Amino acid sequence: MSDVAIIGGTGNQGYGLALRWALAGKSVVIGSRQAERAEEAAGNLRAAVAAAGKQALAIIGLENGAAAADAPVVVVAVPLAAQIATIKSIKEQIRPDVVLIDVTVPLATALGGRASRILGLPAGSAAEQLAEYAPAGVQVVSAFHFLSADLLADPEQNLDCDVVVCGGDARAQGIVRELAEAIAGVRYVHAGALPAARLVEAAAAMLISINIRHKVRHSGMRITGV
Amino acid sequence: MSDVAIIGGTGNQGYGLALRWALAGKSVVIGSRQAERAEEAAGNLRAAVAAAGKQALAIIGLENGAAAADAPVVVVAVPLAAQIATIKSIKEQIRPDVVLIDVTVPLATALGGRASRILGLPAGSAAEQLAEYAPAGVQVVSAFHFLSADLLADPEQNLDCDVVVCGGDARAQGIVRELAEAIAGVRYVHAGALPAARLVEAAAAMLISINIRHKVRHSGMRITGV
Repeated sequence: MSDVAIIGGTGNQGYGLALRWALAGKSVVIGSRQAERAEEAAGNLRAAVAAAGKQALAIIGLENGAAAADAPVVVVAVPLAAQIATIKSIKEQIRPDVVLIDVTVPLATALGGRASRILGLPAGSAAEQLAEYAPAGVQVVSAFHFLSADLLADPEQNLDCDVVVCGGDARAQGIVRELAEAIAGVRYVHAGALPAARLVEAAAAMLISINIRHKVRHSGMRITGV
Repeated sequence: MSDVAIIGGTGNQGYGLALRWALAGKSVVIGSRQAERAEEAAGNLRAAVAAAGKQALAIIGLENGAAAADAPVVVVAVPLAAQIATIKSIKEQIRPDVVLIDVTVPLATALGGRASRILGLPAGSAAEQLAEYAPAGVQVVSAFHFLSADLLADPEQNLDCDVVVCGGDARAQGIVRELAEAIAGVRYVHAGALPAARLVEAAAAMLISINIRHKVRHSGMRITGV
């Protein structure tokens, strides 16, 4: 049993989160559609943790369904175009008391459009879309959209960024807070029930638009006054 | 001729911006549907500037159309439900080289809904909606959504907040930058062409959702990494 499973952990955002949590001493399982790709990413992760001079707990790679079955916290970090197929494929393996964390930003790139645009999803947000396909009763939380994958991948970098979180009951919020604060420099800010995810996802796309305008890949956001 | 006209300057957001610009030594014209209400707000503004120990330039109140005719920069700070009627009512009076600044957040309150929700407008954003009704060729810029009206109204407060701006040519952007930086504590960040306004407007609603969740009225936002 791992501490956290990252479905789509071979992608930039998922890999970066996995690295930070492994560095913080968590056991991590990387999920991918192909077990070999998951195991390859897990190997890279072990090497990156060792290169940072840290002792990693278990870091393993498994096919998505097996990965989902192996942890009480499951992070869905796949592109929007794969989100529904992915949750359908792991639904049977998810534990009933799981905390399911969605990090998806519904970028128009899913349809070949621009990264600075978002799609209007029928569910209202990517997180609510995930919730529609998740097993009944599972806690779905929207989080971790604002963190630059480039900065996450570099253990030397402190992130100057808040994680704005929507949804979840008190237990789920506590789990997400602890995961957020395990990343150097990150602060947890809760923004309300799951429907607020559409606003947070749009704010993430705003950061992408700012990145494009300023020719950088690492803008972030701090909420002030709270 | 004033430096800046604020259409809807009797409302909280418009009044707060007018106060800050008057304190920064700009001549300001407050617009309202009724000239008497505009003049009353201008009187309050003169008193607030005097109470802050500052010498105000001209601060006047006029009916919206006359106010729009009186300045090269026109800020539209009316509720969403009044935005289209307002731009129609001042369109003939707007100067051809005006910079038209939209500060509207398309909150669901326009239809009796929640302040933490936004409407999906057919134009894509409130700023693009304003642009559809503005005179052809006018520069429309989206800005000033994140600034707390409560903090703006208190001259003692430095705002710990960036202004994220969309749209405008280089001249218009320069004018908006100068207005933003005239407010103590505010930084100007450009986020791309006008269609990015839908993302910025959603981010403003995210701040409102955070305010509600945290029982405050003054959250703000800093963009990091740029």
